[in-house]
Parts: sequence; C-alpha cells; structure tokens
Amino acid sequence: MKIAVDAMGGDYAPAEIVKGAVEAARDYGIQSILVGDEVALKRELAEYAVPQGLEICHASEAVQMDEHPANAIRRKPDSSIVVAANLVKDGTAQAMLSAGNTGAAMAVATLKLGRIAGIDRPAIGTVLPTAKGKCVLIDAGANVDCTVENLVQFAIMGSEYASRVMNVSNPKVGLLSIGEEPTKGNELTKATNARLGLVALNFIGNVEGKDVFAGSADVVVCDGFAGNIVLKVGEGMAEFVLSSIKKEIERTLISKLGAFLLRSALRSAKAQLDYAEYGGAPLLGVNGVCIICHGRSQSRAIRNAIKVAADAVRNNIVSCIDTSLKQADMVADGPRTTTQACLERTNE
Amino acid sequence: MKIAVDAMGGDYAPAEIVKGAVEAARDYGIQSILVGDEVALKRELAEYAVPQGLEICHASEAVQMDEHPANAIRRKPDSSIVVAANLVKDGTAQAMLSAGNTGAAMAVATLKLGRIAGIDRPAIGTVLPTAKGKCVLIDAGANVDCTVENLVQFAIMGSEYASRVMNVSNPKVGLLSIGEEPTKGNELTKATNARLGLVALNFIGNVEGKDVFAGSADVVVCDGFAGNIVLKVGEGMAEFVLSSIKKEIERTLISKLGAFLLRSALRSAKAQLDYAEYGGAPLLGVNGVCIICHGRSQSRAIRNAIKVAADAVRNNIVSCIDTSLKQADMVADGPRTTTQACLERTNE
Repeated sequence: MKIAVDAMGGDYAPAEIVKGAVEAARDYGIQSILVGDEVALKRELAEYAVPQGLEICHASEAVQMDEHPANAIRRKPDSSIVVAANLVKDGTAQAMLSAGNTGAAMAVATLKLGRIAGIDRPAIGTVLPTAKGKCVLIDAGANVDCTVENLVQFAIMGSEYASRVMNVSNPKVGLLSIGEEPTKGNELTKATNARLGLVALNFIGNVEGKDVFAGSADVVVCDGFAGNIVLKVGEGMAEFVLSSIKKEIERTLISKLGAFLLRSALRSAKAQLDYAEYGGAPLLGVNGVCIICHGRSQSRAIRNAIKVAADAVRNNIVSCIDTSLKQADMVADGPRTTTQACLERTNE
Repeated sequence: MKIAVDAMGGDYAPAEIVKGAVEAARDYGIQSILVGDEVALKRELAEYAVPQGLEICHASEAVQMDEHPANAIRRKPDSSIVVAANLVKDGTAQAMLSAGNTGAAMAVATLKLGRIAGIDRPAIGTVLPTAKGKCVLIDAGANVDCTVENLVQFAIMGSEYASRVMNVSNPKVGLLSIGEEPTKGNELTKATNARLGLVALNFIGNVEGKDVFAGSADVVVCDGFAGNIVLKVGEGMAEFVLSSIKKEIERTLISKLGAFLLRSALRSAKAQLDYAEYGGAPLLGVNGVCIICHGRSQSRAIRNAIKVAADAVRNNIVSCIDTSLKQADMVADGPRTTTQACLERTNE
C-alpha cells in the first residue's frame, strides 16, 4: 500500500509534509509517494536517514492556497494535487492526501476518482475531540446548501467511517439541530429527522450544539454551513478560554507559580483540544481514499493523517460505504430506506 | 421607572427571582414589581429587609417550562408572564423580564406589546463575552428560518442595542458566514451580505465562527438556527476545556498544588465565560422592553438582567430602533436602504 502525498500543499510545504511522511514511514511503516518538485523534495529528504521505500513523483506545478479550484484543475494539469489523484486513479497509490487548497483537493478528487454510486455530493468528515473520546462531524464544510437526501447520505457515510475506521461499534448518529424533539429545528432538519428514523442506522435523534463536544453522538450530521460554524466556534472558544486563563494567571505571582506547576497539565489539555492531532479529515463519497489536512498542518499532523489514510484503505471504507448505500437501497432508484425496501419486498 | 418581573418563571423561581429583585433595588435603586402568587412572594420577601418600593402584583397562574407557548397564553390569562406584559402595556411598568418558558415570554410580549413598525419578526439579542469585551449575537434562537429582510432588520436592531445600551460607538456589524469573502456562505448569507452593504450601518462584512469569541464584531447577525448553534457550541466547548484541564490537574500532586495556587485565576476566567453574568437577552423588535433570562438564572443573573432592562428603558431603545428603521426607509414601503432612498430623493 502506498499513499500519494501532495508535498507542495500547505502553509509549511514542502518541509513539514516531507518530515511527516518520513515519520509515518519510521513510526508505522507506511510508504508514501511524495508528489511535487523533484529537486525541492530531494533536498528535503536529504535531511533524513530516509526509511526504505519512500518515493518521489515529480510534478512541475503547484496549486496556490487562494487559487480558484476550477482554474487550478484546468490550468495546472501537472500540479502536485492532480498528479497525486492520478496516482490513485491508475492504482499506483491507494490513497491521496493534501494540506493544500481544500477546494482544489475536493474538486480534483471528485473529478478524477468519481463518486460512489448513490452519493450526490462527497462530504468532509472531521474528527473532533469530545469529553467521551472522538466524534465525526459530517459535513464539515464541503456542501453549504444541502437537501434531505444529502444529509441522509452523510449519515450513512459517517456511520461507516466511525464503525470501520474509528472502531466504534454501532455508532450513535445524531442530527445537529436546536432542540432535542424531532419537531425542533429548521425545515431541513425537521424533514431529515423524519427520514433518518427510517434508515437502518443507530439514529439517536437530534443533538444540540452543546452535545457535540460532550460526546453524545459518535457521528454528528449537518450541512456544511452549520458544520463549519461548529468547527470554527469550537476552535475560537477553546482559544478564548485558554487565553482568558492565561491572562488571569499573569495577574499575580502566586498564580504564576501555580501555572508553573500546572504547565504539563495545561499542555496536555491543549493537545487534547488540538484538532490537528487527529490527523486530517476524510473526503467521504469519492470512489477512493482522500484525506484533507488543515493548511497549517505540521509534521505530526501529516504523520497522523497518513496513518488515517492507511487505516481507511485497510478497512475498505469505500466498499463499506458502497455496500451500506446498496443495503439502504439508495443507489438504483434514489433514496429509499431499508425499512421501506423490506416492506415492499414482503408485499411482492 | 418600574420593571415587571415574572417571579414564577425559571428553575429557581420564586426564591432566586425575588432575591435578584431585592439585590437590584439595593445595589442599583431599581424598583421592580414582582408578579406571581402573592402568598408565596410575601413569604420570600419576608427573608429580606426589603428596600422601599418593591411591589407585588398577584397572578394566580404560572406557565410551566415545557408548556406550549400558544396554549399557555390562551389557557392562562392570569399567569405571571401575561400579567407582567399587561403591566407594561398599561404603563404601570416600563419593562418586563422573565426566566420562565422562553417561547411563552416571546409570544406574550409580541402579542401584548406589538411589534415596532418595520419589524417582521422580533429577535433575541444575546450578549456574549469576547476576547475584546462583549458582542451581541442576533438572532440567538427566536427565528429558525429567516429571510434576507429579517436579517437586515436584526442588523439594525443589534447595532442600535450595541450603541445605545452597551455604549459601543459606531458598532461593527458582522454577518456570520463561513468565509470572509462576500461570495462565501449559503444562499441566505450571500444575498444578505449584498444587501447589508447598502444599509447605513458600520457593516464589516462576513465574520466566521472563530471571530465571534475573538471579538471581531460588536454585532453578529445570523438566523436563529445558526445563532443557537453558536451559543450552544460555545457553551459546550468552554465546559469541555475547563473539564479537560480539571482532569489533567487531578492526575498529579504537583498539578493539584498548582491548581490550588491558581484557583482564583481559574474562577475569574470561568466567571468571564459565564453568560449568566451578562444578565439576560433583550427581545428586540417588540414595542416595549422585554428581557429574557436563562431558565437556570440565579439571583445575580436576575439582578444584572433587571439592570439591563432599566438601561434599555433609560436609553429609549425602542424609539431608537424605530427611528433607525425609519431612516433606513424600512417602514413604509418595505425594506429599502438609506442610500437608495437618498438617491431617489435627489432624483425627484
């Protein structure tokens, strides 16, 4: 198994990307193909006693962080992200990974790898820390305006990901809304709640914003607008709390002494809250494994993301989603539920 | 000036509500009319050396927290929340306040006091702590599905509130979205961004979830669905961070000693994050002052909310919103902007 890594994408590319790939090979024995400028990548690799099997695949261009995704694909066919996707498409690599332009990575992956039958729109599943461990938030920002069908597909994909890659048995699937009763929420969540109750999932109903980090659900389903707000508000609040504490600490000498004694506890708490530690978000629904990393990912985040990519490949996430959609009868005739399908079969 | 306080609404009613009113009279000299069961309220007041002028107005019923708002109004005309609204309507009191059933309080206030001309839907403006001070989030949950016109009205009301009651000069108004560019967001935010640019406000464009607690804007405008998610995710994340730190602290003796020395700093940080300290959220757009408190409000939150109610009355928030809407020409002919109106007048 090989992971095609876009070595030119991200705020700290190529240095930290290369370092992360080296660490993944050293720590987990996972082989990567570093895609990007050959000269630059060779120079970076020269820094390390490179573990066996780490390869370079030359790509003459790179998509910039602020480039329009469509332009990037059309005008830069030899960019590192396009070449990485081609490596997966032709079977040379089994997964692709990028910390570069998220829109471009999504567009390239969808175009080159295609969608799983029954999926209208691929979605980003971001793994978040919670008081009980982890949960996957889907969609975390790929699809801003969604339909009920989109959200049902997100729920099925998120549940498969939690079960197959995060090893959660019978994952609890919650629908993000503003009140626990099925009738609370906006038009989209009310209609989706009714539909999710009919799908063969461990659907626990609506969950509220407070429940996300409390860990009430293993999978939190929402449109990409709400998902992005959850991510960003969570991130902003964590920073605000930690800086408020820091500010209070700096006010007295006694507090400073306390902070000195507490420093490792504060560091651990901060690390637990750091999404980057969780190593990249899968783009679910494309016909292949594609992991999207935060632009500011450093080597540790890249290493973890490569591990996530390998886990997703090993656990056949794509075919699991495919099977699950077929079981839910969402492929041939559009969205129907397992229950409905069973009833119809019984009636035949 | 007198504030009609629903003394029977809230998780700790009537004891903490009465205590809060006593504290507001003692600390700020603000007179309240406690509305509710006369016998129960007299018993509560007997606990205190009651400051002059605190009155009781008997109401024989109380709306329960889980009652349907419409039912509550129709079936309980002598409930404390309805009687409190009537006191404002007939001019006996200048503001009403409730920590009871939020839906019932909104419905009663809207029905009894009416709406300000030009406002389609009243909205809840919740004051949040930020790294730079405070901001008002509007709508925080009253209106789940909104139109562009609703959001423009929220922006005008929020700006007036920040300027008149929170004393922010020329408040920065931000539109909650998922990307700073005007073209980023969902259909609603894209259309609203274009419209807000034409209104005579200090509109700073889109703000992201991260910016809310960073304090980038003084007024954050969104629909009630997104607003509720911001509130609840923020609350959940703050709890998660503090409990993560606590868990880490409990692991070693040295950390425990550090925590002991830090305890006042941690307490101050926690207090800063406690929304209750900010004392209730105004229901803006009704033709009178109505402050809605969290169900779990205790005396301190009630005292602060009574102060907020008095500030809103003193600063004529209702007539300021009214004037601002008229200036923006949103009253007579539906939503038009000051700029548009000026141009038209110039052309005439």
